[in-house]
Amino acid sequence: MSASAWGAAGLPACPISLRDYPRVTLAHGAGGRLSAELVERMFVATLGGESLRARHDGARVRVGGRGDVVITTDTYVVSPLRFPGGDIGTLAVYGTTNDLAMCGARPRALSLGLVLEEGLPMDTLWRQVLAIRAACELVGVEVVTGDTKVVERGKGDGMFVNTTGVGAPVDAPAPRPARVRPGDAIIVTGDLGRHGIAVLAAREQLMIETPIESDLATLVEPALALLEGGVDVRCLRDLTRGGLASALNELAASAGVRVELDEERVAVHPTVRGVCELLGFDPLYVANEGRFVAIVAPEHVDAALELLRRFPVTAEAVAVGRVLERGPAEVVGRSAYGTTRVVDMLSGAQLPRIC
Amino acid sequence: MSASAWGAAGLPACPISLRDYPRVTLAHGAGGRLSAELVERMFVATLGGESLRARHDGARVRVGGRGDVVITTDTYVVSPLRFPGGDIGTLAVYGTTNDLAMCGARPRALSLGLVLEEGLPMDTLWRQVLAIRAACELVGVEVVTGDTKVVERGKGDGMFVNTTGVGAPVDAPAPRPARVRPGDAIIVTGDLGRHGIAVLAAREQLMIETPIESDLATLVEPALALLEGGVDVRCLRDLTRGGLASALNELAASAGVRVELDEERVAVHPTVRGVCELLGFDPLYVANEGRFVAIVAPEHVDAALELLRRFPVTAEAVAVGRVLERGPAEVVGRSAYGTTRVVDMLSGAQLPRIC
Repeated sequence: MSASAWGAAGLPACPISLRDYPRVTLAHGAGGRLSAELVERMFVATLGGESLRARHDGARVRVGGRGDVVITTDTYVVSPLRFPGGDIGTLAVYGTTNDLAMCGARPRALSLGLVLEEGLPMDTLWRQVLAIRAACELVGVEVVTGDTKVVERGKGDGMFVNTTGVGAPVDAPAPRPARVRPGDAIIVTGDLGRHGIAVLAAREQLMIETPIESDLATLVEPALALLEGGVDVRCLRDLTRGGLASALNELAASAGVRVELDEERVAVHPTVRGVCELLGFDPLYVANEGRFVAIVAPEHVDAALELLRRFPVTAEAVAVGRVLERGPAEVVGRSAYGTTRVVDMLSGAQLPRIC
Repeated sequence: MSASAWGAAGLPACPISLRDYPRVTLAHGAGGRLSAELVERMFVATLGGESLRARHDGARVRVGGRGDVVITTDTYVVSPLRFPGGDIGTLAVYGTTNDLAMCGARPRALSLGLVLEEGLPMDTLWRQVLAIRAACELVGVEVVTGDTKVVERGKGDGMFVNTTGVGAPVDAPAPRPARVRPGDAIIVTGDLGRHGIAVLAAREQLMIETPIESDLATLVEPALALLEGGVDVRCLRDLTRGGLASALNELAASAGVRVELDEERVAVHPTVRGVCELLGFDPLYVANEGRFVAIVAPEHVDAALELLRRFPVTAEAVAVGRVLERGPAEVVGRSAYGTTRVVDMLSGAQLPRIC
C-alpha cells in the first residue's frame, strides 16, 4: 500500500474554487480575506478538530493525563531579514511567545526550524542565532529542539524561521473568541502601524525624515498580568498581519458579534500616518508586532488599563471601542465627527513578507 | 532600546570558520559532518540548554507542574513533492511523529507551518492537505494549530512544510544516547536506502526496471511496543538524512563509544544496490523514512526481535552489530570476509532535498 493519498479514488473536490484561484497567490498568505478563506475552508474544515476550530492563535491540548499545554506555531519569512527595531530572529521568538500569551499561557519551550538558502552569509545566520538567544533570555524561554534544512540558491530567500511554542496555561479562564459578549470593551495597547512601515522603509529604502522603528516587543508580561490580575479578560489577540482591522474582523466573525471602533481614539505616530497617506495605506490594516487588543468585561476596563499602564510597552493602552449586539459579524468605524463606515477585511494585504 | 541583537558591542565571533565557510552550503543541511558541526557549534553551543545538549531527535520538557511532554520539529523540503510511495504531506506527518516515538513518546498533537510559493497549483496544495489528513488518521494524531505564509515566485520551491509534534512519554525509561553502553546490541528494522533512491528516481526520472517505492511509514507502534513490552531499550533513532552510517556515527559520538557493524547482515534491495553501484553511492548513507535502529540490552535482543516481527513494517528486523568499548567514537564495518573499515561520517550527503 502506498503511504500517499495521491490518486485516491474519489478525491474530494478542492474547497477553494480552482476556476477563481487555480494557483496560490501572495494574498493567500497576507492575513486578509483570502488567507482566512484558505485557512477556514481548506485547513480547518479538512484537518480541524476542536482545537483548530476554536480559531485562536494557538491550541490547548491535553497531553497524556498531564493537564493542558498550549501550542502555537508561526513561520517567519520577513524581508529584509533586518529592519529598524528588529530582525527575523527576534521576531521569531517574540512573535510566537506573544501568541502563547494571547492564549493565556506562559511560554516554556520553543522549537526552531530553519530553512536556509544556499549562499546565505554564515555571519548573517550567526547574528540571527545571537538575536534568538537574546530574545529567549528576555522572554525567559528556551529553544529545546531544532531542525535545519538548506535549499538550493534561488529556491528560498536567505532564511525562513519556524518557531513553535509550548506553554503552560496560567490559572485563569482561557481567553478566547467564544467568551466575547455584547457590551465588552475593546482595549488597544498602543499606537499602530510601526512594524509595517519600518519593514517597508527598510525594504524600499524609503527616505523618512524621522525614521520609524518597528514596535516589535515581547507582550508576555502585560498580557499575563491582566489574566493573573483578576481582570475578566474575554479574549486577547496580538495585531500582526492585517493590523487591527483584520484582528477585529476575525474576532467579530469567530464570536458572531458586531463591534464598534472609535477611530479617533486609535493612536498613530505622525510619521506612520504621513507614510500611509503618501502610499494610500490605512493604518488600521498595517502590521504591528508589539501591540495587542484586549477584550474585557465592561466593569473591568479601568482595572485593565491601570494594569497595562504599569508596563512601558503597554503604557499607552486605551479603550477604543465596544462589542455591540450578536448577529452578522461587522466592524463599524466611528469618526471624530460621528460618521460611520464599515471597516472590512482586505482581500489581501497592503504589504507581503511583513512577518 | 532596539529589540535586536544586531550591532551589539563585542559581538561573539562566529563559531564556524568564516574563512572556510563564508556562506551556507547545501552540505550544511545534508545531515553529514558539516550539518553536525553547524548544529553543535552554532545552535547547541549558543542556544542549548540541557534538552538541546541531549542530542536526541526531540526534547523532554516540563510544562508548568504538569509532568513532561516531548517536543520535536522538522521542516520538510523534499523535491519533488510527490515520489513513489509518498509525498511531502505524508512525510511531514510520519517523519515528525516517528521522531516522537524515537524519544519514547506517543504523538498527541501536531502544528503545521506552511511556506507556499506564489504560483503553486491550488490542487497540489489540496492534495497535500488530504495526504496530511490521511496520515494523521493513520497515526492517530491531530493538527491542532497552523500557520501559512506565501513567498513570491522564485523565493521558495512549491511548498515547504514544518510539523512540530508534542507527545506524552510512555511509562518506560526514556531512550537516549546517554543510556547506551558497551555490549549493547544494534538492531535495524529492515532493508536500507529505498527512500533516497525513490526520491532520486522521481527527481531525475531515472528509468529503473523494477521501480523502488520509498519505505516511508509510521514507526510509532513498533517503537512504542518495544518500550512498553519491557525490552530494555537504550536508544532509538530513525534513519533519515545520512542513513544508517550517519545515525550510528551520531550515536557513537553522543554516547562516547565504538560500535561494530556486520555489513553483510544489513539488507539492501537488489534494485537499490544496483542503482547505488551505478551512481557510486553507499547504501549505508542513503536516506530512509521507514526504518529505525534500536540499541537494546544484549539479553533482550531476542525479545526485541520477536516483538518487532509482529509488525509488517519491522518484520525484517535483524541484529546487525554491537556497541564496543567506551572511548573515541568510531563505527567499524566488518565485511563477510572479516575485513574491517571505518564507516565515517560524510561531510555532506549524496542527495540534497531528500526530506
